[in-house]
Amino acid sequence: MSGKYVYLFGDGKAEGRADMKLLLGGKGANLAEMSSLGIPVPAGFTISTEVCTHYYEHNNSYEDVVVEQVKAGVKHVEEVMGVKFGDVHNPLLLSVRSGAPASMPGMMDTVLNLGLNDQTVRGIIEQSGNARFGWDSYRRFVQMYGDVVMGLKPESKEEEDPFEVIIHEMKEKRGVTLDTDLSADDLKELVELFKAEIKKRTGKDFPADPWEQLWGAISAVFSSWNNPRARTYRKLNNIPAEWGTAVNVQAMVYGNMGDDCATGVAFTRDPATGEKIFFGEFLINAQGEDVVAGVRTPQPLNSTTRRDDSLKTLEELMPAAYADLVKVYKELENHYRDMQDIEFTIQKGKLWMLQTRNGKRTAAAAVRIAVEMFEEGMIDKETAVMRVEPEQLDQLLHPTFDPDAEKKVITEGLPASPGAATGRIVFHADEAEEWVARGEDIILVRIETSPEDIGGMNVAKGILTQRGGMTSHAAVVARGMGICCVAGCGELKIDYRTKTMTVGDKVYQEGDWLSLDGSEGLVIEGKVPTVDPQLSGSFGKLMSWADEIRTMNVRTNADTPHDSEVARNFGAEGIGLCRTEHMFFEGDRIKAVREMILADDEAGRRKALEKLLPYQRDDFYGIFKAMHDLPVTVRTLDPPLHEFLPHEEENQKAMAAEMGISVEDVKAKVEALHEFNPMLGHRGCRLGVTYPEITEMQARAIIEAACQLKSEGVNVLPEIMIPLVGTKAELADQKKVVLDTAKKVMEEKGVEVDFLVGTMIEIPRAALTADKVAEEADFFSFGTNDLTQMTFGYSRDDAGKFLKEYDDKGILPDDPFQSLDQEGVGQLVEMGVQKGRQTKPGLKTGICGEHGGDPRSIEFCYRAGLNYVSCSPYRVPIARLAAAQAVLINKK
Amino acid sequence: MSGKYVYLFGDGKAEGRADMKLLLGGKGANLAEMSSLGIPVPAGFTISTEVCTHYYEHNNSYEDVVVEQVKAGVKHVEEVMGVKFGDVHNPLLLSVRSGAPASMPGMMDTVLNLGLNDQTVRGIIEQSGNARFGWDSYRRFVQMYGDVVMGLKPESKEEEDPFEVIIHEMKEKRGVTLDTDLSADDLKELVELFKAEIKKRTGKDFPADPWEQLWGAISAVFSSWNNPRARTYRKLNNIPAEWGTAVNVQAMVYGNMGDDCATGVAFTRDPATGEKIFFGEFLINAQGEDVVAGVRTPQPLNSTTRRDDSLKTLEELMPAAYADLVKVYKELENHYRDMQDIEFTIQKGKLWMLQTRNGKRTAAAAVRIAVEMFEEGMIDKETAVMRVEPEQLDQLLHPTFDPDAEKKVITEGLPASPGAATGRIVFHADEAEEWVARGEDIILVRIETSPEDIGGMNVAKGILTQRGGMTSHAAVVARGMGICCVAGCGELKIDYRTKTMTVGDKVYQEGDWLSLDGSEGLVIEGKVPTVDPQLSGSFGKLMSWADEIRTMNVRTNADTPHDSEVARNFGAEGIGLCRTEHMFFEGDRIKAVREMILADDEAGRRKALEKLLPYQRDDFYGIFKAMHDLPVTVRTLDPPLHEFLPHEEENQKAMAAEMGISVEDVKAKVEALHEFNPMLGHRGCRLGVTYPEITEMQARAIIEAACQLKSEGVNVLPEIMIPLVGTKAELADQKKVVLDTAKKVMEEKGVEVDFLVGTMIEIPRAALTADKVAEEADFFSFGTNDLTQMTFGYSRDDAGKFLKEYDDKGILPDDPFQSLDQEGVGQLVEMGVQKGRQTKPGLKTGICGEHGGDPRSIEFCYRAGLNYVSCSPYRVPIARLAAAQAVLINKK
Repeated sequence: MSGKYVYLFGDGKAEGRADMKLLLGGKGANLAEMSSLGIPVPAGFTISTEVCTHYYEHNNSYEDVVVEQVKAGVKHVEEVMGVKFGDVHNPLLLSVRSGAPASMPGMMDTVLNLGLNDQTVRGIIEQSGNARFGWDSYRRFVQMYGDVVMGLKPESKEEEDPFEVIIHEMKEKRGVTLDTDLSADDLKELVELFKAEIKKRTGKDFPADPWEQLWGAISAVFSSWNNPRARTYRKLNNIPAEWGTAVNVQAMVYGNMGDDCATGVAFTRDPATGEKIFFGEFLINAQGEDVVAGVRTPQPLNSTTRRDDSLKTLEELMPAAYADLVKVYKELENHYRDMQDIEFTIQKGKLWMLQTRNGKRTAAAAVRIAVEMFEEGMIDKETAVMRVEPEQLDQLLHPTFDPDAEKKVITEGLPASPGAATGRIVFHADEAEEWVARGEDIILVRIETSPEDIGGMNVAKGILTQRGGMTSHAAVVARGMGICCVAGCGELKIDYRTKTMTVGDKVYQEGDWLSLDGSEGLVIEGKVPTVDPQLSGSFGKLMSWADEIRTMNVRTNADTPHDSEVARNFGAEGIGLCRTEHMFFEGDRIKAVREMILADDEAGRRKALEKLLPYQRDDFYGIFKAMHDLPVTVRTLDPPLHEFLPHEEENQKAMAAEMGISVEDVKAKVEALHEFNPMLGHRGCRLGVTYPEITEMQARAIIEAACQLKSEGVNVLPEIMIPLVGTKAELADQKKVVLDTAKKVMEEKGVEVDFLVGTMIEIPRAALTADKVAEEADFFSFGTNDLTQMTFGYSRDDAGKFLKEYDDKGILPDDPFQSLDQEGVGQLVEMGVQKGRQTKPGLKTGICGEHGGDPRSIEFCYRAGLNYVSCSPYRVPIARLAAAQAVLINKK
Repeated sequence: MSGKYVYLFGDGKAEGRADMKLLLGGKGANLAEMSSLGIPVPAGFTISTEVCTHYYEHNNSYEDVVVEQVKAGVKHVEEVMGVKFGDVHNPLLLSVRSGAPASMPGMMDTVLNLGLNDQTVRGIIEQSGNARFGWDSYRRFVQMYGDVVMGLKPESKEEEDPFEVIIHEMKEKRGVTLDTDLSADDLKELVELFKAEIKKRTGKDFPADPWEQLWGAISAVFSSWNNPRARTYRKLNNIPAEWGTAVNVQAMVYGNMGDDCATGVAFTRDPATGEKIFFGEFLINAQGEDVVAGVRTPQPLNSTTRRDDSLKTLEELMPAAYADLVKVYKELENHYRDMQDIEFTIQKGKLWMLQTRNGKRTAAAAVRIAVEMFEEGMIDKETAVMRVEPEQLDQLLHPTFDPDAEKKVITEGLPASPGAATGRIVFHADEAEEWVARGEDIILVRIETSPEDIGGMNVAKGILTQRGGMTSHAAVVARGMGICCVAGCGELKIDYRTKTMTVGDKVYQEGDWLSLDGSEGLVIEGKVPTVDPQLSGSFGKLMSWADEIRTMNVRTNADTPHDSEVARNFGAEGIGLCRTEHMFFEGDRIKAVREMILADDEAGRRKALEKLLPYQRDDFYGIFKAMHDLPVTVRTLDPPLHEFLPHEEENQKAMAAEMGISVEDVKAKVEALHEFNPMLGHRGCRLGVTYPEITEMQARAIIEAACQLKSEGVNVLPEIMIPLVGTKAELADQKKVVLDTAKKVMEEKGVEVDFLVGTMIEIPRAALTADKVAEEADFFSFGTNDLTQMTFGYSRDDAGKFLKEYDDKGILPDDPFQSLDQEGVGQLVEMGVQKGRQTKPGLKTGICGEHGGDPRSIEFCYRAGLNYVSCSPYRVPIARLAAAQAVLINKK
């Protein structure tokens, strides 16, 4: 190992740059960039991610070259800041922070005030003239180092932090309630008590040597890359484990040296709405962690964004520093050409920037910022389109509360993450996961959230917290996840022990229904009905730009006229998958379906099918009408017939009674239809081959509906799709039934309609022999759900038993049912397209598996040359945007 | 349509040749060839198979050009034979016979004596001077034409032929028992009665016009290409439906004009043993169909092959004609350089040849003839190796009756097809299929068999007939199928009505056990134990030639030392698949297996696995020892764990009692392990990934056994195979467990053994990503059973529900579980080999699915570049021969 591993910055210069994120992490790269721009940044250095990788590969050790470069780094900081590491009079104190290539807020460890010991604390007191500050800094350092580096932080959050226990005892002894009520002497005593606790628990002395402290902290940060919550976060956000984290070592600056000090976080535009206002919060005389921890209620930066008139703004309290901050934020946004999330500290009136990064934002904000930045001339259209994560749009596309519905608002909080949610109250994140696993919708209610809650937050419909501001953990995470959140709802009283939440004198139990309006910050009792979302003008603009760019069509999977209309309003350009089996369950139809199944011969089946025909025709009439002028792909019957029979004895009895047959006959039929592996059994076109009369009835219903509409002047484009085809002969067999029936119907009706007959490609063999299958097919639609099942040999219903273990062991990078396995299944898709077009150049191809709504899979579909993707109605805009981004990504 | 569709022959000349079988069918091509050789063949012409195809594609019609050429053909026959079609004094009578490119004996229709009507019958009587012959010929013609062309033949063979009913009534009225006892007048009356019956049943008159008769017969023959029994036969013999049949129209010659006439069939060598003797049967004053129908007992051609001294030979009765026949048969065998099956008729002392073709033969005969023809200098070694159908060897490789066993021989018949069979008596072919479907072994017992019985014959263990000779339908078909047959067992009295068979006064019922020795012609009461087959010297020679030629190794699938030895004796060069799960069921082991499954944690599982370890080690010890110096591929545990638990309540109770737990606990575990699609569930390496301790125990057992044998001086070559791998990471995970365990064991034992770690390629994704998987694999073994299931999306256990229909509709040309689907699954095999070797040139690859014993699949494996095939022990010689033929086929 040789080369450069440590990158210096500070004093208007830097060795790194913003585009070196993979090497320096986001924080390090941006600190370097800010320093180069001449923005005031405390001097420091970044240890690169290469060191992290080496550290893991070499049994948590460092090469000499790294040690030397860190030494030089400290020297550089000493020189720029005019202080000395370990000096008893003018000591350099350091922060040691993680900084990964992708933002992972709060997931990894941090150590502040490093360099303090019984000697250097005197120097700090000397320099600051503030004994309380000195001892408080020392106390905080020992606590943080003890937790993070020496491992005293409890693994379970049910256990209390031992240092907090000591503080609590001290406060009780002193008869005070706030940490700030403790005196310098109290804090000094706490340092000793903390050290004793560390010795007691670890058998080791707290290290007094600043260098030992430094290496301990660096190693703790590297190690925290692989802690469980960081791993969970990476998985949720598709961040590769190989990237590693960088470590930033930087001179400390203090927002807590007195009332001429402050610390804060800000966004250059409103991260919830995207509005172009400078938006942030700060605390006087505080360290940075205090703002995001949500313990004290932070103050607004300026009057524009003040919600509570009792709070003073930074603009009012420190106008000079505020003016500097405004200058910096504008420079940063202009430089990065994106909305920035910044952290700053004001030490004795002087502004220091600690971080800048592209700010996380709600989908609404992302859309508005992208569109307005284009209109301001800051970015071009393509950049605007690339600025919004397609997945994020999900937030905008789901229903909101019906404005006319009666709502019993029981309290209000901060509108921390927009959207509407209804669910049952659950108080613990891990229990939330259990509730959701049982199929419940839940609202996670917490005093405040912490990174350990990430799993439960991810499955909640909404999050409600008692404490914390707009930049609290709960708020930031919820916005990132697109989950509705009401934060800092001070009127709530939450008791984890009794699992109750009290507002006034009304007590809510675990399991009670609650609704949240994250856009308004409302907490509502019970369930509230929702209405379809209203999309902003910015949204429409962005979508129209996406439509200009994209080359793939976006269709929807819809089985009813209502879903068809919803999708059409979202921009769907047709139906890619209309499943007909759902229609078999409604009302009286199931009876006719069962008659068909129970019939002993073709004549009996035909009799039952005749009863179904008018229902199916009406279904198709409604759907075709809703989708006039657009293609509608109808899939013939797919599931095995046993799915239409009851499997519970109770229901079998009811069916027997209704049909006037014996329960034994019902049972015998269920038994006869039993399959060992129904997924690989008598379903799909195999049903149509053995019972052509079913296909015939369905084809008749489709063509009759089409003829009727055509004679009413409505333009219809039916595409009949045969499922589960594995051989050309199967498709040929079913196609013949369809064509013969269509010919007959059109003769009967005296109306000619154009239609296509194609197939799902969902059996590996169909992809392998796509050149043959294409001879019979007008189009291919890749059914990647089944294709994934068969290519992996996984039953979707059963794979849960081992997929979790596979995930934990890193055997599968992603759940192949969520994001298309491009390496394996993707080969079959590519092969299908290529071989199909070898036979029929220009063969229309699409995807109708659930992957059709997954942005990464959509990008793959673009590369594979598909003509369209089809997804659920609410995902249509996501797919439109993803399809546009696919073009832009592949242009590069 | 234009060109040549009708090919003339006769008078020492011909337009066709023997190598034109695809166009003229086997019979037509050989008639032409014989005619060109100057062998006496009645003049005639062949309508080519192209006309058949055209006939089916154009709604059963003919082009004018065909009609013209047929007319010219009839003219040619008239000229050569000196007779005239439809002439009242000297009429030409014709035979109209099918003749497909591949032999399909008795499957299609034939019409003889065509051209007779109320006028021409006078001419025949005039010419032959024999009124009875004339009317009998006319009677036979009307009957045959009525049955075949006019459709009076009953579809079900339970119904009697209406003409036979009339004959029967006539005989009763006349008080006679034999057809031959009927007078010329009786026969003349029969003709009228037959015509009346035809009119009554069809509403149509019997056609008097010879040309109308001719076209009716030609169409009937073309149509019979697609009758059900022909379709069944083609399927069993892999004959493509597209080939079609030719039609041979030929002047009639008569073996039934008097006692100076005869008809017979012969083989140029013994078709049962291959011995070089001229072997055949004939009947005086008979038509050809009488010999094969088995109604009269035929006489031997010569004293060499006479078994019954009371019968006169042709040599004795017609020495001149016999001498001509001997000259002809020698010329034919020399010309074709293969054993010929010939048909001849002697009309008034003159020999006419009606057919020659390569004779069907038993496997023993095939081997002997191939080897002896090579030794006689007639053919080369490669031809000899190509002369034996690998599949046929199956006959030689199965056990025969233990010569020392007590056998109660109840009667004897002709040794019509060799082998030994034990099964339960069934009298009807269709019922035979039902019995076998229920898992019974059966012996089909018939008075005589007919082409309609083909399905039942194919599933029988043995066939026993009361009537018929060595060339009877039963004998010919049984030899072709490799099924043991005792024919012409005259002492039997069979009563279909009561379903009984009587020998002397002993009555056997349907369902009674019976054994047949087809090599000796013995019928034995009850079951008889069998012994392993003794293979002939010719067999050894042929196999050694095959071994010289072949390039692929042949291994075996064996799970026990005994099977390993059997396979080794058959020439297996290692084990390609040793399944370990079978070992889990024996004796006490299942208890330990269940303890493992019931254990709540790893410690509990390890405890149970420790009990299994010594058993597994001993298993491997025995197998490795039996296979010393040869590679042994051991597959780690594959089936889902629920297969080791009882599913019946009764057995669950027993298990609960034995394990000392509640039956509820057993049920709960069974329930917990339940899967919707177990084939796609928690099995194969997925078990090993979640329970690495199972893989660890198995690896330990393998390596401990290997170390022990090595220290005893035995050379062992274990190859550990991980099943159901779909991703490189799975294999890497399991390989690490194996390597770590092996290292530990070898250190403990102080012995080093070489071993490989490879994988099954049985998941489509593994083939698609074989380049990646190969990075971790020392070898690939294609598990084509599972690969077929997943590539088609067919569950082998369930596909029966629709595969029959698929077969009937021609959607699948073959059952993909029997013969590898080269078009689809084969692509994955080729891809696996090619991508695997892209990563590791020379990667060892093999196949261990059941396809490894199927000759067509073996030929595919050769082309795909596999190093070895692995099959069941008894199929090893078949695979050796098929592997040699693969080389020869692909050399061409």
